[in-house]
Amino acid sequence: MIKISIIGSGNVAEHLIKAFAKSEKAEIVQVFSRKKESLTHLIDSDKIVTDFSVLKEADLYIISISDNAISEVSGRLPFQNKLVVHTSGTTSVKALDSKNRKGVFYPLQTFSKAKTLDFSVIPICLEAENEADYNTLETVAKSISNVVFPISSEQRKALHVSAVFVNNFTNHLYQIGQKICKEHNVPFEILKPLIFETAEKIKTLTPVEAQTGPAKRNDSATIQAHLNYLTDENQKNIYKLLTQSIQNNGKTL
Amino acid sequence: MIKISIIGSGNVAEHLIKAFAKSEKAEIVQVFSRKKESLTHLIDSDKIVTDFSVLKEADLYIISISDNAISEVSGRLPFQNKLVVHTSGTTSVKALDSKNRKGVFYPLQTFSKAKTLDFSVIPICLEAENEADYNTLETVAKSISNVVFPISSEQRKALHVSAVFVNNFTNHLYQIGQKICKEHNVPFEILKPLIFETAEKIKTLTPVEAQTGPAKRNDSATIQAHLNYLTDENQKNIYKLLTQSIQNNGKTL
Repeated sequence: MIKISIIGSGNVAEHLIKAFAKSEKAEIVQVFSRKKESLTHLIDSDKIVTDFSVLKEADLYIISISDNAISEVSGRLPFQNKLVVHTSGTTSVKALDSKNRKGVFYPLQTFSKAKTLDFSVIPICLEAENEADYNTLETVAKSISNVVFPISSEQRKALHVSAVFVNNFTNHLYQIGQKICKEHNVPFEILKPLIFETAEKIKTLTPVEAQTGPAKRNDSATIQAHLNYLTDENQKNIYKLLTQSIQNNGKTL
Repeated sequence: MIKISIIGSGNVAEHLIKAFAKSEKAEIVQVFSRKKESLTHLIDSDKIVTDFSVLKEADLYIISISDNAISEVSGRLPFQNKLVVHTSGTTSVKALDSKNRKGVFYPLQTFSKAKTLDFSVIPICLEAENEADYNTLETVAKSISNVVFPISSEQRKALHVSAVFVNNFTNHLYQIGQKICKEHNVPFEILKPLIFETAEKIKTLTPVEAQTGPAKRNDSATIQAHLNYLTDENQKNIYKLLTQSIQNNGKTL
């Protein structure tokens, strides 16, 4: 078994602890958390440490904390020449302290503590400095997921920005849809099948092929009617900008 | 059996023809199409007519054509005091010619000819001028879908604008995500599980609860890094506007 220590107790750390509990190739030997009680529902309390100095020998240390703390925490680890990775989409592998062998173990998914996930379908993006370390990461990743990719720090930047568009911004559009429904006494439930089908469609069509609606059809009467209907300036601005963007794409694609 | 005539041969008309083929309460007696050959793969060719004057007696006429043609076509129907409905999200029930009894039969979904759909989960929004006509529409709608709602023309406007946000604009965000991936040699496939989970999440969480990401966290370092990373002005503008909108929502909700 590959021995893993997790440094952190946030959403991603929690989901990793749950996923590795079922792994047949890797086991968690310790978890570092500033507050011991925040993880006792997930792992034996004698495996939880609150002091870096008692971190034991492991084959892999996974730092899963806020992006801006990765550099400092990696510098405080009391050992060297070990394999140390972070789980961040935005942070370069170089942010890790050079006293250890560096890498990235980035599961690309939206994690909420309140929502359980099937880890086996979550893509894990890996980066390492040498082949042996990559192989270790790959064995560990494949023991919890069926979708594992080598992704450089440069590629990871593109992925993370794209993820903001397809996840954060998309979810915000759901929120605007819900707000408009609420203001006009329409149950938001009616829109949910449309939301699921919008995502489902790109299993078989490209987003360009799947595009429909007044902007795509250049249906200026409907676009104007919608703009007249919206009273919120912010919603109007988003409507205009995205409509324009769809129309311009049509010209260049 | 309730006898239905469909006027039109577009995406929605095609999906309705397929759905009613399995209905136990309603049957299609005729379909009007400008080109006979466009529907022969779906229905007996002797049921397809290309001339309004040969439209037979039916209990319900469903006009499923471009929004801007609804008014004119409803005026050309060679009968009166029949139940005539349209399938448009944006058009008022009043657009239909007053010589017949008016109504709306609006299936709220994104229809592509290339993609098959399970009609039973598609919400159908109904409107009629009197109870008897509403009951007819309800019987017909419930024979193909489990999700049927009475929705006024006013409410339908709100639904349609919301649908543009959660479907058209969301799909466009997928397209931007795909473009960014392509430009940086990252397979868009990696993002698909994230896209599906983004939609799945709102089965159990509200969009406000499901919101994550740098805008929600007010992580200005990541936001700035993303804006520096994007080279396309249009993508930068969308990123800024939606980030701002998420941040402002956080203040007001």
